[in-house]
Amino acid sequence: MSYLESISTPSDLRALDPGELDGLAAEIRDVLIRTVATNTGHLGPNLGVVELTLAIHRVFDSPKDKVVFDTGHQSYVHKLITGRADQFGTLRREGGLSGYPSQAESEHDLVENSHASTSLSYADGLAKAFAIKGEDRHVVAVIGDGALTGGMAWEALNNIAIAHDSRLVIVVNDNERSYTPTIGGLATALTTLRTNPRYEQVLDQVKRRLNAVPGVGPAAYDALHAMKKGVKDALAPQGLFEDLGLKYVGPVDGHDRVAMEQTLTRAKRFNGPVIVHAITRKGQGYDPAVRHEADQFHAPGPFDVQTGIEKPKDPIWTDYFADEMVQIGRRREDIVAITAAMMHPVGLHRFAEEFPNRTFDVGIAEQHAATSAAGLAMGGLHPVVALYATFLNRAFDQVLLDVALHKCGVTFVLDRSGVTGDDGASHNGMWDMSILQIVPGLRLAAPRDRARLVELLNEAIEVDDAPTVVRFPKGPPPDDIEPIGKAGNADILVREGEHDVLIVAVGSMATVAVDVAGRLEAQGIGVTVVDPRWVKPVDPAIVELAREHRLVVSLEDNGIVGGCGAVLLQTLNAAHVETPFRLRGIPQEFLDHAKRAAILERIGLTPQALALSIVEDITAVSEGRSLIDADHGT
Amino acid sequence: MSYLESISTPSDLRALDPGELDGLAAEIRDVLIRTVATNTGHLGPNLGVVELTLAIHRVFDSPKDKVVFDTGHQSYVHKLITGRADQFGTLRREGGLSGYPSQAESEHDLVENSHASTSLSYADGLAKAFAIKGEDRHVVAVIGDGALTGGMAWEALNNIAIAHDSRLVIVVNDNERSYTPTIGGLATALTTLRTNPRYEQVLDQVKRRLNAVPGVGPAAYDALHAMKKGVKDALAPQGLFEDLGLKYVGPVDGHDRVAMEQTLTRAKRFNGPVIVHAITRKGQGYDPAVRHEADQFHAPGPFDVQTGIEKPKDPIWTDYFADEMVQIGRRREDIVAITAAMMHPVGLHRFAEEFPNRTFDVGIAEQHAATSAAGLAMGGLHPVVALYATFLNRAFDQVLLDVALHKCGVTFVLDRSGVTGDDGASHNGMWDMSILQIVPGLRLAAPRDRARLVELLNEAIEVDDAPTVVRFPKGPPPDDIEPIGKAGNADILVREGEHDVLIVAVGSMATVAVDVAGRLEAQGIGVTVVDPRWVKPVDPAIVELAREHRLVVSLEDNGIVGGCGAVLLQTLNAAHVETPFRLRGIPQEFLDHAKRAAILERIGLTPQALALSIVEDITAVSEGRSLIDADHGT
Repeated sequence: MSYLESISTPSDLRALDPGELDGLAAEIRDVLIRTVATNTGHLGPNLGVVELTLAIHRVFDSPKDKVVFDTGHQSYVHKLITGRADQFGTLRREGGLSGYPSQAESEHDLVENSHASTSLSYADGLAKAFAIKGEDRHVVAVIGDGALTGGMAWEALNNIAIAHDSRLVIVVNDNERSYTPTIGGLATALTTLRTNPRYEQVLDQVKRRLNAVPGVGPAAYDALHAMKKGVKDALAPQGLFEDLGLKYVGPVDGHDRVAMEQTLTRAKRFNGPVIVHAITRKGQGYDPAVRHEADQFHAPGPFDVQTGIEKPKDPIWTDYFADEMVQIGRRREDIVAITAAMMHPVGLHRFAEEFPNRTFDVGIAEQHAATSAAGLAMGGLHPVVALYATFLNRAFDQVLLDVALHKCGVTFVLDRSGVTGDDGASHNGMWDMSILQIVPGLRLAAPRDRARLVELLNEAIEVDDAPTVVRFPKGPPPDDIEPIGKAGNADILVREGEHDVLIVAVGSMATVAVDVAGRLEAQGIGVTVVDPRWVKPVDPAIVELAREHRLVVSLEDNGIVGGCGAVLLQTLNAAHVETPFRLRGIPQEFLDHAKRAAILERIGLTPQALALSIVEDITAVSEGRSLIDADHGT
Repeated sequence: MSYLESISTPSDLRALDPGELDGLAAEIRDVLIRTVATNTGHLGPNLGVVELTLAIHRVFDSPKDKVVFDTGHQSYVHKLITGRADQFGTLRREGGLSGYPSQAESEHDLVENSHASTSLSYADGLAKAFAIKGEDRHVVAVIGDGALTGGMAWEALNNIAIAHDSRLVIVVNDNERSYTPTIGGLATALTTLRTNPRYEQVLDQVKRRLNAVPGVGPAAYDALHAMKKGVKDALAPQGLFEDLGLKYVGPVDGHDRVAMEQTLTRAKRFNGPVIVHAITRKGQGYDPAVRHEADQFHAPGPFDVQTGIEKPKDPIWTDYFADEMVQIGRRREDIVAITAAMMHPVGLHRFAEEFPNRTFDVGIAEQHAATSAAGLAMGGLHPVVALYATFLNRAFDQVLLDVALHKCGVTFVLDRSGVTGDDGASHNGMWDMSILQIVPGLRLAAPRDRARLVELLNEAIEVDDAPTVVRFPKGPPPDDIEPIGKAGNADILVREGEHDVLIVAVGSMATVAVDVAGRLEAQGIGVTVVDPRWVKPVDPAIVELAREHRLVVSLEDNGIVGGCGAVLLQTLNAAHVETPFRLRGIPQEFLDHAKRAAILERIGLTPQALALSIVEDITAVSEGRSLIDADHGT
């Protein structure tokens, strides 16, 4: 029987002896590596928290005590020891385990959101609730040094510092790098804490003395750790956390399980908010990950377990953006680039290599990314801010009031828009085209292919008096589709037969629309496919096209409420175009994780399903009937 | 000639001698007090920055150097000395000076947004742009201790700490309280800096020695200040800012102009990012303000200059919410309240007095307000988060993913929704009903009067598996309008004559709609007025009502794109209700400041204008014509 098989709840961990725990840790690493090698997912972060997670679950009593993982992708170890080891092979597969905590999966899971820097706020609320209700329960938040750069973490720390009744232990999982090396003032502060020379000096002395004593073995280990903490407290200078009035213990080696358990036990007894500063190594225990320069296998594609070599991937949208940014950078000296701790994932590393002084990694700080971009624009430069689409939500107010109100020429490039699939509800980029519709003056482009990405990005950076947005999806782009004509600034992609159906296809849905058009033509239905290219503002030419057709279908990979179709409907209504209109997009709900293709099939955004429904609709229109009822998705 | 009349640009300040500067400061305070007493506006904050602002403009060279005021309501002094003293009587009046910086008014103004905590991000961007372009220009950011509690400030500080080429001076305007006493860890850190005993001790010694020397007068003043700074640097412990790697100078008395100028001069010479920690007193120089307990006349209504007594005001929406919260708190022990540094303005002070342990002021930290509320809800309580509607933008991602995705029962109460008027573009609460439409599961209520406020608030706190929102406008509520019938959960307010026009009136627009209905009836037009009460989700009964009428008009005090009308249109389209539909709301643009009534008149949201356009529309419908074209506002 494997160690993991013997663990059905965290309390089972307490029955294991040190040797067994070491065996368990090794087994967990093996499972992590083998599973992620085929299923994909987050590897480096989970390898870094094996001992830390075991220690937390031995010291605290989940689910009575609550454990909140910031950016839940570091919860795999937690999943393995909370009764889900036997299902771990289904990780990130449809119907299988989520790559993030999931309340539906386990009573040990709480926070499902994958956006960073939230854990301290949740934990503050939870601990206050328990204090108010007089319940003897602890809350443990695990937050990385990267996530601490997010503004929410600061807001939470300020509040936790005065929540004296909160039984709250904050484990700072400090691996000295988040996605890329953590930058900024916080890094300075953490380094000071990590490298306090007096502390290290005394600790070395103690170690040397103990080693010099004959017969000192594992029994002295506990004593050593106890001394370690005493020494630390006596010598540590005031640091960042203590300046804020927070109790601080550490630093402690996050891979030393015994040290972690002792520190956590002490923190637990304090019965007030405590910071436990754990030093860990991303990728720990798997050489290819530790050696991986860019991000310690943060979230690799499929790879070979022995060599750690990733399977070759086709170029994705990001790669084409990356290359074009370099070209643009060479041509225009006023172009600067901003990433929020995602230099490689958003493809700005190539620009950064060539123009290091014109590239800024601001940390996990989308708000600052947007407003500092406004400042750069006011200073006469043109910033390109590259984010995942879902993370733009964090900067909505800044895009609206700091960039748009001030008419700043800032270009936002939104990667991973639309259905992203595997990473679950909070990673889908299905909100951006709705919230951006309400920003006065903002211009929004959705390229359908590589040629349009290059074209629209270059048009966007020419706009110097308003924010511009260029958004594209995850994965490899489809083949280019050259237009057969223009309608205003829009591209006509198909114009066949009578003016029966107009498909207004946004971004990546253009390829789908062209496929649909072929199916309709085969049935003798006249069809026009138009790609607006710029979806905001609505091109008057699209309004005229709509007027000329018998049915309009809008097609977008964005939530259906308030998206491009909705605004087009509103525009047609204002212009009194009464052509029957069918909106197609993502239903307005949180989507469970699954492969992108499977989700698109489930929500009816495949060529087959769309063609079928359009045939029904145009038949109804021809017969003078109303369209059949649709779920409006609200 | 007054001193102010002699100052047409900041450089004129440099010609004044110390006595003249003192006279100018006194004159500025007099103008501030007299103007705000009649025009209303922000008084306490501006009285607190008189010397600080003069010092900045004597040391730096605006507009070559850039001065960015956080929460621009502290920019009145800046306006008075940058060529606008003669127009200051028009403050906050339509066509007059804005209560915030305004690029249209002056080349000395830059940041118009009134939302807090943005200045450091703007300044970071500006300073980096100047550094990249090799321009010899400084950037000065003035930020209060309150605004430093916002997460954006933390994100910016982390970045500024490593921007070694940035000629950036951050003046921390520390008045020990923002709207209400600043809370949290940051306050602890600032207090440590303020009250370093070694520093005070040495300073006292120096003072005593100087005083003991015969003939030491004003001439020794400079020397004292020079020593002050030297002493400070030698003895100050590491503090928060230095932990982050930021150069720190201070604390300096922000009302001591000479000290301020010397400190700023030194900071300017450093040619890298520097924090200048200025201690100021809100309301300084006007006793009624200093003595005012709640907020030092932060933003009083009209008041008597001699006595400082505010003119009595009619009770406003906030007061009724405040009272009902106390009632609810008595009835339900699980209700907790959260404010983001706006205890009095949002009316939670009464609840806080009675239930101090169930009230949390989180600082200017809307993100933390939302996510800690999610945590409180997960812990078994029901939080009520009271914010100004415009500030909810800051927490969009948290409402979506932290509250709604986790199905947390959190009630958001949005005050000052719709057109607020005087405070300019960034204060209008015209975005919330659009961004909230896209949040799955969220329920949104807009009470039309006091009775509905009580009713809907109580319905909202019964929902324990989804976020609920109750939003109401600024000012006094209208008289209650009792329903004459129900349609689903909606209230029928008017039902007269034929089923010609259906007016779907959201929240405070119900009163307007009833007025409009009277005008239509008088012309023999049949009219139904329905108040949905809950505007999200759309009540199926409203869809059926729409089907039965010949014209539907939606009426809301929210931006027209993606708001309640837009979603109703989308819902009707999905249900194939083909009744002509006219959307009425706020045009999707940034509104210049003016009185609320004047803005509503300008944008056509008055009973007269609405009745007129509806008569035109229903006539067109009756004659089988299309409605006349409308501007869809995108």
